[in-house]
Amino acid sequence: MSKLLNPKRTVAELKELRALTGDDNGAQRVAFTPMWVKTRAWLRKKLEALPVEIHTDAAGNLWSTLRGESEKSLLIGGHMDSVPNGGWLDGCLNVMAGVEILRRISAQYSGKPPVTVRLVDWADEEGARFGKSLFGSSACSGNLDMDEARGLKDKDGIRLPDALNEVGINFDRVKDSGKELKNAAAYLELHIEQGPVLLDLDLPLGAVLGTFGVERHAITFHGQAAHSGSTPMNRRKDAFLAAAKMSPFIYSLAEQHGGVCTIGSCTTKPGIVTSVVEECRITLDQRHLDKAKLERLYWDARDASEQFAEDANAEVSWERLWQIAPRPFNDDLIALCDESIRETCGKSHRLPSGPLHDAAEVARAGVPTVMMFVQSLHGLSHNKIEDTKEEHLELCVTAFDKLAEKAMTWMKSR
Amino acid sequence: MSKLLNPKRTVAELKELRALTGDDNGAQRVAFTPMWVKTRAWLRKKLEALPVEIHTDAAGNLWSTLRGESEKSLLIGGHMDSVPNGGWLDGCLNVMAGVEILRRISAQYSGKPPVTVRLVDWADEEGARFGKSLFGSSACSGNLDMDEARGLKDKDGIRLPDALNEVGINFDRVKDSGKELKNAAAYLELHIEQGPVLLDLDLPLGAVLGTFGVERHAITFHGQAAHSGSTPMNRRKDAFLAAAKMSPFIYSLAEQHGGVCTIGSCTTKPGIVTSVVEECRITLDQRHLDKAKLERLYWDARDASEQFAEDANAEVSWERLWQIAPRPFNDDLIALCDESIRETCGKSHRLPSGPLHDAAEVARAGVPTVMMFVQSLHGLSHNKIEDTKEEHLELCVTAFDKLAEKAMTWMKSR
Repeated sequence: MSKLLNPKRTVAELKELRALTGDDNGAQRVAFTPMWVKTRAWLRKKLEALPVEIHTDAAGNLWSTLRGESEKSLLIGGHMDSVPNGGWLDGCLNVMAGVEILRRISAQYSGKPPVTVRLVDWADEEGARFGKSLFGSSACSGNLDMDEARGLKDKDGIRLPDALNEVGINFDRVKDSGKELKNAAAYLELHIEQGPVLLDLDLPLGAVLGTFGVERHAITFHGQAAHSGSTPMNRRKDAFLAAAKMSPFIYSLAEQHGGVCTIGSCTTKPGIVTSVVEECRITLDQRHLDKAKLERLYWDARDASEQFAEDANAEVSWERLWQIAPRPFNDDLIALCDESIRETCGKSHRLPSGPLHDAAEVARAGVPTVMMFVQSLHGLSHNKIEDTKEEHLELCVTAFDKLAEKAMTWMKSR
Repeated sequence: MSKLLNPKRTVAELKELRALTGDDNGAQRVAFTPMWVKTRAWLRKKLEALPVEIHTDAAGNLWSTLRGESEKSLLIGGHMDSVPNGGWLDGCLNVMAGVEILRRISAQYSGKPPVTVRLVDWADEEGARFGKSLFGSSACSGNLDMDEARGLKDKDGIRLPDALNEVGINFDRVKDSGKELKNAAAYLELHIEQGPVLLDLDLPLGAVLGTFGVERHAITFHGQAAHSGSTPMNRRKDAFLAAAKMSPFIYSLAEQHGGVCTIGSCTTKPGIVTSVVEECRITLDQRHLDKAKLERLYWDARDASEQFAEDANAEVSWERLWQIAPRPFNDDLIALCDESIRETCGKSHRLPSGPLHDAAEVARAGVPTVMMFVQSLHGLSHNKIEDTKEEHLELCVTAFDKLAEKAMTWMKSR
């Protein structure tokens, strides 16, 4: 098997892609833009060298199907789109490793593997342009909120349906993409970690337990604007003070219950140096792999906010911005992923995924799913300095290929 | 004396002014705009009925001089300009009370009082358009920073010198206005309190001890942006957390040393819900009447910020936005102000002024100065709901007139 797989080629192809679609500020493969169309054309050329059927589905996802003896399908997924000024690996590592695995399976089984193997390049995973991630995979899983999506606009005021039309996608039909999952028996996704956990442990690879559930809220404290010079301290209704006092408490909840909590933005009104803050709005993002603990994170924060508001003579209101349930991956596939990693580099580690991935949507649609993470240098992503050691890139292609083979065997036995 | 003074007329004139220059959102007398020019024309008409010499000085301040037996001058000041959507009393109460006092003195002394009495309507006290308050009075006191002022632009990009030129003021000569203070022996200013102190004490009037010194800084915490889902809590460099933790401490300093501290704005970068805050900038405004205690407020906050930054694995930098020394008023005049108030309504209270006033600039130029405050309803200002009971408006005109008479006597004896 190892002679048919060439992980160095994957690294070379990723560099070729970087030269074609990046600039000094990073990757520029924003979905539904000309650069993304160019990226897809480049990918298609690679795929056309293989005995695969290629088509774009109703949501713009690009599928390459290597027909096998059984219609049962092993899906391997990723996304070629990037955020603006993005990293060179985020999403496309997954796809290009998939291309290499298709080559290996096709060669090994003379074009006819025991099960059908399909590579999917999901459309607009990042949501960079319209502010809504997982577009293609959520259309495919059937969970895309059509009314919400119809109203999305980019910064130039262009509506999502119009942008889709430009690239030949009929918005009203995007959920027809769901039929692609008909025979799906397993879904695998490789990704850079985008965090520092494997780096801290000095491990190249990890098996992903699932994606965190997310509670995302805007919390607004309402006080009273008052002159900063003439208003005694004991007469103030200071919205910022309430928010400031609550913040360390919110972080302490993550120590208590696990998971992560982030206050990502804070805005103040009137927001001038000479006035007590009348309105302070913070955004809170809470994540946990355990549904019950996620609920605790949320309710503990919510209950405490009332007290912090009262202490500052202010009031508080909460607005849910977004919510998603934790999406635990398939136990069998997690075990196979672990095994593949150990066979490749001796030691594995199981970790949750903080960021969402298309895999969460596929799992949500009921397809047994697992992800593999490869270490990120600096623990950073969505940034031109995002990087992974070349030896780790090669290891991940090898381990991910082992996982694909094990998954095929596992699928047959089910 | 009381028969010659008509405080009800002052209230009527203030209402007339409100009808002329206000709308549903409040007063609209922003300096150097057509509405301000209209306001000045209205004021001039009132003044022309008196035996006063009227002229506009090099900085656009409008002076009305009632020549007396001595060249020693008693100055009474205020400002007709307002913030946009401002209150109906802020600044113009002072001027209109001064007009009424000129009428009384002129009538009582048959146009020739023992000392010269001058009313000044300072230009652009609020600084609403160019972001720099006390323009006219700081030009007159000689403390206007010419280089800074030359570079000021309004939101439409119009430069201050050009806006001044529109209303006939030559920017390069504004400090010639300083000669107006040549014979000044006392400066009196009446103002609404713009705070809740007199309201809380249920007192109509108070004698002002001086204006707070101000330390105004931007404090920026520098952390590291990181994905809100993939970054474990112990790996974060959270700039917002550092700022949040420091804020209650800063407020506690005011409890310890007196004075007031305000964090008026907070901005976060990248400021998105899915990222740890990399940069958090807050503005801090600290005020105290005592120079040494103001320094303590500042240095205690600065020292502590280093520790809060370190606790969050962040760094901190300070930038001074503005600074002004406390400006204590003249002890004799404070005593006379107190006396005038007690004679008018039985009980007085001494309090510092949190907001700055033109009086601070005049005191800074070495002219013995005092201010009188009248109670603000709601303790609010710079707002259409700013208000003062009519009976208190009448009382303040009466008490302020008494103070003017006492000041004239005091000046003669010096």
